[in-house]
Amino acid sequence: MDSGNVAWILASSALVCMMIPALALFYGGMVGSRRILNMMMMCFGGASLVAVLWALFGYSMAFGNSVGGLGLIGDVTEFPGMGQLLAKDDSASIPVILFAAFQLFFACVTTALVAGAAAGRMKFGAWMLFAGIWATVVYFPIAHWVFAFDSADGSTVGGWIANGIKAIDFAGGTAVHMNAGAAALALALVLGKSSGWPKVEHAKPHSRPLVLVGAGLLWVGWFGFNAGSALSAGQSASVVFLNTAVAASTGLLAWALVERVRHGAATSMGAASGLIAALVAITPACGAVSPLGALAIGAIAGAVCSLAIEWKFRLGFDDSLDVVGVHLVGGILGTLLIGLFATDKAPNGVSGLFYGGGFELLGVQALATVTVLAYSFGVTWILAKILDKTMGGLRIKPEDELRGIDLAAHSELAYLMDEDPVELGSPQRV
Amino acid sequence: MDSGNVAWILASSALVCMMIPALALFYGGMVGSRRILNMMMMCFGGASLVAVLWALFGYSMAFGNSVGGLGLIGDVTEFPGMGQLLAKDDSASIPVILFAAFQLFFACVTTALVAGAAAGRMKFGAWMLFAGIWATVVYFPIAHWVFAFDSADGSTVGGWIANGIKAIDFAGGTAVHMNAGAAALALALVLGKSSGWPKVEHAKPHSRPLVLVGAGLLWVGWFGFNAGSALSAGQSASVVFLNTAVAASTGLLAWALVERVRHGAATSMGAASGLIAALVAITPACGAVSPLGALAIGAIAGAVCSLAIEWKFRLGFDDSLDVVGVHLVGGILGTLLIGLFATDKAPNGVSGLFYGGGFELLGVQALATVTVLAYSFGVTWILAKILDKTMGGLRIKPEDELRGIDLAAHSELAYLMDEDPVELGSPQRV
Amino acid sequence: MDSGNVAWILASSALVCMMIPALALFYGGMVGSRRILNMMMMCFGGASLVAVLWALFGYSMAFGNSVGGLGLIGDVTEFPGMGQLLAKDDSASIPVILFAAFQLFFACVTTALVAGAAAGRMKFGAWMLFAGIWATVVYFPIAHWVFAFDSADGSTVGGWIANGIKAIDFAGGTAVHMNAGAAALALALVLGKSSGWPKVEHAKPHSRPLVLVGAGLLWVGWFGFNAGSALSAGQSASVVFLNTAVAASTGLLAWALVERVRHGAATSMGAASGLIAALVAITPACGAVSPLGALAIGAIAGAVCSLAIEWKFRLGFDDSLDVVGVHLVGGILGTLLIGLFATDKAPNGVSGLFYGGGFELLGVQALATVTVLAYSFGVTWILAKILDKTMGGLRIKPEDELRGIDLAAHSELAYLMDEDPVELGSPQRV
Repeated sequence: MDSGNVAWILASSALVCMMIPALALFYGGMVGSRRILNMMMMCFGGASLVAVLWALFGYSMAFGNSVGGLGLIGDVTEFPGMGQLLAKDDSASIPVILFAAFQLFFACVTTALVAGAAAGRMKFGAWMLFAGIWATVVYFPIAHWVFAFDSADGSTVGGWIANGIKAIDFAGGTAVHMNAGAAALALALVLGKSSGWPKVEHAKPHSRPLVLVGAGLLWVGWFGFNAGSALSAGQSASVVFLNTAVAASTGLLAWALVERVRHGAATSMGAASGLIAALVAITPACGAVSPLGALAIGAIAGAVCSLAIEWKFRLGFDDSLDVVGVHLVGGILGTLLIGLFATDKAPNGVSGLFYGGGFELLGVQALATVTVLAYSFGVTWILAKILDKTMGGLRIKPEDELRGIDLAAHSELAYLMDEDPVELGSPQRV
Repeated sequence: MDSGNVAWILASSALVCMMIPALALFYGGMVGSRRILNMMMMCFGGASLVAVLWALFGYSMAFGNSVGGLGLIGDVTEFPGMGQLLAKDDSASIPVILFAAFQLFFACVTTALVAGAAAGRMKFGAWMLFAGIWATVVYFPIAHWVFAFDSADGSTVGGWIANGIKAIDFAGGTAVHMNAGAAALALALVLGKSSGWPKVEHAKPHSRPLVLVGAGLLWVGWFGFNAGSALSAGQSASVVFLNTAVAASTGLLAWALVERVRHGAATSMGAASGLIAALVAITPACGAVSPLGALAIGAIAGAVCSLAIEWKFRLGFDDSLDVVGVHLVGGILGTLLIGLFATDKAPNGVSGLFYGGGFELLGVQALATVTVLAYSFGVTWILAKILDKTMGGLRIKPEDELRGIDLAAHSELAYLMDEDPVELGSPQRV
Repeated sequence: MDSGNVAWILASSALVCMMIPALALFYGGMVGSRRILNMMMMCFGGASLVAVLWALFGYSMAFGNSVGGLGLIGDVTEFPGMGQLLAKDDSASIPVILFAAFQLFFACVTTALVAGAAAGRMKFGAWMLFAGIWATVVYFPIAHWVFAFDSADGSTVGGWIANGIKAIDFAGGTAVHMNAGAAALALALVLGKSSGWPKVEHAKPHSRPLVLVGAGLLWVGWFGFNAGSALSAGQSASVVFLNTAVAASTGLLAWALVERVRHGAATSMGAASGLIAALVAITPACGAVSPLGALAIGAIAGAVCSLAIEWKFRLGFDDSLDVVGVHLVGGILGTLLIGLFATDKAPNGVSGLFYGGGFELLGVQALATVTVLAYSFGVTWILAKILDKTMGGLRIKPEDELRGIDLAAHSELAYLMDEDPVELGSPQRV
């Protein structure tokens, strides 16, 4: 066991945990001032529930020995409650319980990402139930497919995408972002549009500074997400770190540039979204490409996603905070572009089409993409439909939507400002 | 010296430092919009003063060789100004000066925690004086009792709780949370209630999003606090990390659930408070229990503290931000529950009542609890009384309280919004 | 290669990245509510552009082999696009690509710092162009002078300040802070004053809590900046860490005290500024002094800078957010005070005047200071003048300034609050 590796994964886990408040800020700033608390509560509440389920059985489902060796799902009976991980395993390069903690936050963040599609109109109890079941039937299995590698000695069998078709997904383009994006689309469709959509004045971003700060802190947390996925502190993590840094930068610039050209001004919402779109796209690719490849992937993601977020208006689904346009599209882009930009000099050691590889890698990436999308969308849609029928609807009452879900669901208003005039004494230096 | 251990404690120290702005947000959001700056200044100012005192003599008092070998207080003359720590000590597993930096922020955060009891009504100069003396006569001694371990070769004698009765307090349930909570109670009693309490409209939370973000960032920082207290990057830190993650989650859920059952809605204030209450409770216990034990402790803390915060209304003390209900009660819970939930498979290697141990551990934990509570409450009460008599009162004037302490104490208002109507040009995409 | 060192520099790089959103908060809170988005966009946009340039050629210019061995500029053709750094260099103590990532954020943060001088009145396109060229012609060369050390085997020649005169600048008092401050002064002079300056009501800080939180997060990030500059996880980084912690604390206290004495109240703006001023001053000195020296430097910086920020009113330049008073003055103080307070027991191993050294070190520090100031101010002034002439002016229209640059440059308003009265249902617990 190498203490340097352990130190980095400890730090990375804390960074990934920071993505929870960061996402709550990012999403919370994007909604109206009487919807922010619910949005933040969906993030924190969903993440907390999934953390508990992870400890109880989720880790086993994702990283237990594959049932029947099929690579579809881990053995849920293997680590219930995780007490088995208290004992030190000297053969592991980092403590298994640390790996479990690191991956715990992946499950939390992915579930919280889905919430962006349901802003301002979903019963909080329904969301919590959805979040718990969704993690169980969608996230834990897909995490097994993508993140569970066969053990070196063959004693533990992992997931089919990681080991069977050997698709490249360094830190979760499929399992995290595409998955969250597809689920968000399904949930948005079952949930239906906000009252008055698309012209919902009180649903507009109420605090763009929060959005920018949230995006900035997500960027910081993402270094734990991506470079932590190297599971060691060495050359691989370092390459991944640099790629993550520069891809994010071009994503911001590309989105801003497209906006400037199309609409005459680069907005802060665009900058924040471009940063995140590029981070999404580099997530699967961060270990497979050179810095120039990362720059290209970031730029492509920023530009394409800036167009993709408009589809919801044409197609008529209320993906309130653009989980589809950013995470689904960004995730697909990143996963497929590996097939083009992968270079064997990068940590993954595989070449894509532009670096002398053939079409095979592209095909493998496409297969992983299609399967994850189909499974996530399909199962989520069915789950949402079942909940909708059994819970007397997923939506809050229309009048509560207009009044603001914070009051309806949490009996709270986010802000309460003293507005009475101040009698300034002296000396005052306001 | 192991660079991996050093790396983790460096990172942990930065994370604990982050708890200062995080606490300022958490507390700042909970007060009125004309009290937030003072609240934040109490956190930043108190922390800064204590950091300086730590460097000058506090580290010596806490971690110097115990005077007379009694385990009551370290030798203040041992490391004045800390220049002695510039030299590398090759026998240490991490640089002593790094340990001093890590523990510095413990002193800062503990002092800042106390401020929550004094929101909106204490002279800023009185607070600063209080903070400096309190750290010196209360925190530094108790830190010595709890955190100063005898050196392996016996050359340095530590504190009586750590070495004499060998109570378990991994990261500060007694020295930090109970201590801050008991001091907060004493200060609140001497200070008296806010004008108009308990119906103080302008003292209500003015920005719940800040509270949630503060709680989220405190969670992140807490990983440094708890897992950093392992002082190494290995199995122990990893177990502690996971326990901290899952306890926080059940705390949030338990508090929210109690609220839902009792009042019909889970609030964001409750969620944030539940998260923190559970983090408080797991702080002493994080190295002593299994993940299931951590889940239980988190849940118990969330539920119990959600009830405990109401005592102030029945008993009539104005602990404005519930330092007592969350830190004192949560700290007691965590310290005592070790006596029940400790398992010898966890890093501390000791069994509690539920895992085959006897009542002895519970007794030891209770002794540590009672002593710290009594000392902290008693000395703080006397200190506050003395300051009250010698400074012409600790309170600002009643009219300043109503006008808002930010103006009175800092000549500032927190917010200044441009409110005049905007003449929108075109094209605008607001 | 030592994994512990790698772990710490990975974590440090993430911490330095966090300084970007932290600075956006710090600066953003200091401007009016219709100027904050532009301020944040200058930080994020400028940083992103510089990150891309760094990957393309900036790293080569700063850390490539010195052209002609002169120590003036690195060979731009050496690492274009950074693909060369994908290969592992076993002789390096940390991966070269990680060093490049760590230093990338130094370039980003330094550029973003300059933006504070141009708040509320500069065309966004002009800022972006300025930022890109400024980094290229000012930052990259100076980074070469100060940060590029000769390789041990002599195969790579570094910069003249680091190797020729051997001035001490541990983490960037010259290259980062003085440089940003001098550039800010030049830009402010060319740009001219805000309309109505110095009485610009709508330019006043609109959210002091954001300023405090930004300062707090900058503090946290600064540990990566300073202690990461040790490039290893050991005694040096630990000393630097402690010095950074305590200097910041005295800076806050000193500024607050001066305010209290001069104006009767310690403000939150002063506390935040004092914290940052001290962090600036300790940046070059953090490896050269004892904790007592750090306390002294922090206190001097806090006190002196609190006076220095008033010069702009006397001299009549609109350095809107006091980049000159804090970063230029603080940077000079820190760099020169090394000549007094350096002790050979600290990591740098050199003695200043107060510790038995002679005047030589002071002279060397002064030479580095004067050169960096002159180069940065001169080149920046010329660059700003050229852009001013060629772009039809750097300023937005006066009416847009009054209306708020957020609308004019980004077609956005930062805040949009639902203000209509709420019909509270029951039970409500607002």
